[in-house]
Amino acid sequence: MYEYSHGGNAVFEDGKESVIDLSANINPLGMPEGVKSAIIREVANCEFYPDNFSVKLREKIAEFEKIKARWIFCGNGASDIIFRLPRAAGAKKVMITAPTFSDYERSARSFRSEVIRHTLSERDGFILGGDFIEAVHSERPGLVFVCNPNNPTGKLTEAGLIERLLGCCKQIGAIVAVDECFLEFAQQPSEYTSKVFLERYSNLVILKAFTKLFGLPGIRLGYAMCADKTLVDNLYYNGSDWPVSNLAGAAGMAALDDAESFIRLTVSYITEQRTAMESNLARLGYRVFQSEANYVFLQNPYPFELHKELDKMGIRIRSCGNYHGLDGSYYRIAVSQESNNAKLLCAIEHISEAYKNNQPARPIVC
Amino acid sequence: MYEYSHGGNAVFEDGKESVIDLSANINPLGMPEGVKSAIIREVANCEFYPDNFSVKLREKIAEFEKIKARWIFCGNGASDIIFRLPRAAGAKKVMITAPTFSDYERSARSFRSEVIRHTLSERDGFILGGDFIEAVHSERPGLVFVCNPNNPTGKLTEAGLIERLLGCCKQIGAIVAVDECFLEFAQQPSEYTSKVFLERYSNLVILKAFTKLFGLPGIRLGYAMCADKTLVDNLYYNGSDWPVSNLAGAAGMAALDDAESFIRLTVSYITEQRTAMESNLARLGYRVFQSEANYVFLQNPYPFELHKELDKMGIRIRSCGNYHGLDGSYYRIAVSQESNNAKLLCAIEHISEAYKNNQPARPIVC
Repeated sequence: MYEYSHGGNAVFEDGKESVIDLSANINPLGMPEGVKSAIIREVANCEFYPDNFSVKLREKIAEFEKIKARWIFCGNGASDIIFRLPRAAGAKKVMITAPTFSDYERSARSFRSEVIRHTLSERDGFILGGDFIEAVHSERPGLVFVCNPNNPTGKLTEAGLIERLLGCCKQIGAIVAVDECFLEFAQQPSEYTSKVFLERYSNLVILKAFTKLFGLPGIRLGYAMCADKTLVDNLYYNGSDWPVSNLAGAAGMAALDDAESFIRLTVSYITEQRTAMESNLARLGYRVFQSEANYVFLQNPYPFELHKELDKMGIRIRSCGNYHGLDGSYYRIAVSQESNNAKLLCAIEHISEAYKNNQPARPIVC
Repeated sequence: MYEYSHGGNAVFEDGKESVIDLSANINPLGMPEGVKSAIIREVANCEFYPDNFSVKLREKIAEFEKIKARWIFCGNGASDIIFRLPRAAGAKKVMITAPTFSDYERSARSFRSEVIRHTLSERDGFILGGDFIEAVHSERPGLVFVCNPNNPTGKLTEAGLIERLLGCCKQIGAIVAVDECFLEFAQQPSEYTSKVFLERYSNLVILKAFTKLFGLPGIRLGYAMCADKTLVDNLYYNGSDWPVSNLAGAAGMAALDDAESFIRLTVSYITEQRTAMESNLARLGYRVFQSEANYVFLQNPYPFELHKELDKMGIRIRSCGNYHGLDGSYYRIAVSQESNNAKLLCAIEHISEAYKNNQPARPIVC
């Protein structure tokens, strides 16, 4: 099998309950109310084809995002859209940051595009800077991916920088895909979203998903926003038909029914839990890069492999060893329910103390 | 929007009940028992990511198909697999027949492959012959699509011809994709399936779907079978992650629970209904090409547009005017429940008689 992996892929044969999975970044509040019953109501309709162009769902998303329905493409998760983009953009060269979500590179390679990685500097706290725009200007790619906040660092990119990037890319004829799948978890998403640029920059595509925010990874539903009709058409053309199942469509509609209050609750919970996790991890000696997403990003100063030690205690976190631009000392940990987060800290404290005391870390029950 | 369309895409705003949709070829018996409850049981698991590689589902399909689980790829409907194929095969040139299912060409164009159409002759009843192999040998494509039975003609290709095609393609380094999505509807699928060639020809990929046979178009679930591990890996690599939602996976597993008897019932029902429809249509003067699938393929000898006349009476059929190699005089009509088929015949009889009597065909209730 190809060497690529994400968090949350593990199959837990012997009981999901015994494992705390913090390797995938899913909303700890679970899915919004009403989603389950909406799916159940839709089951009988599975004898009909889905609407290929998800008309009703796009109208509902348009209302939620306060944009036009025809600016929206709906797909089988954000990953589906990422794979359509290089083809829809006809991009011979694709520019990405390192580290970032691995699917951008894989989709580019799948279309036989050249991939240029711009390495984010650890010294700058992995924050995207003006040198990226210079690099884009000189490389002249056909497509640029920016993950905002970035996966796995949780770092936001300033709206001003994105606007400069859009201007530069407009000049060189490049599409900019801004992945905002984790942006709603930030405290001030409205200050950072690129949505305000959609009308002015037809070379902008914003990616979003129901997966993380609405706790629905098993459903597969994502969408893109873009003011360029031809590009939206190209997204539809350059990929399978009927990308959104009837069940995913129904789940998405229901999730948006009371989205504002669900998101408010989510962000307040995540912020509180993440802040506590970050300060506790810092206290234990870990190098914490303050995240704005629903995960914590850290570097392990100790020589032991944190994920292997935690694995022995039934807790899974995401080693960032296979991210370009990072190494095995970096980790991404999902912010989960309070009890899981407490168990994680208990386990990390135990492991770290044992190391400091020159003792082997015997697994304990946290 | 791009100019491509299939059957079954219409959105019936004003009540599905009032329209008989024979433009999409879905099993008239509906979905197998157990599928609905399996989906409902799975809803709570949508808070977890699907298994990216559908391990359990592939085992279940392997048991049903009597092949190895590692020979299987599962995707978001057969359409998803069709779009991965040109990339997985790295095909610069793709060869298809005309007429055939339009997604083969669209997926090839999306990968910027050259498309060569081999026109099937009406004189030969649109049956694939040895001249196709000669054409493949001289064109040297990287990928060849054969739809068996063909959509929209319902015509089967002999296993012997497929084997010669496989041999020729092995020699020129081409992949052969045989789409058997409609094969289980035929009376002797075991005589026509290419499964027997999988072990000997690693350049063979067979496509199948739950959509038509198990009446589950709204679920999105299809699979490919191929003995070449690298090609199966390539299918996974060259497309989005988590292509099969948890709900589609659960539906697929449940549909296979008692597949043999469900298929037996289906084929017996379809064969009886199709035979009756075909002889009745022939009696009314239509040119019927005997089909082996769950649809009827015919040519209208009269100058009126049959689909428009039927549309006025609330019945939708598939005009084949946008198939390469056909024109607007050809139609594909799904074999539906007996009562729908009777209404269709009543309507066609009314329309045809009115024409013969030089009268306008006023819509009646059939």
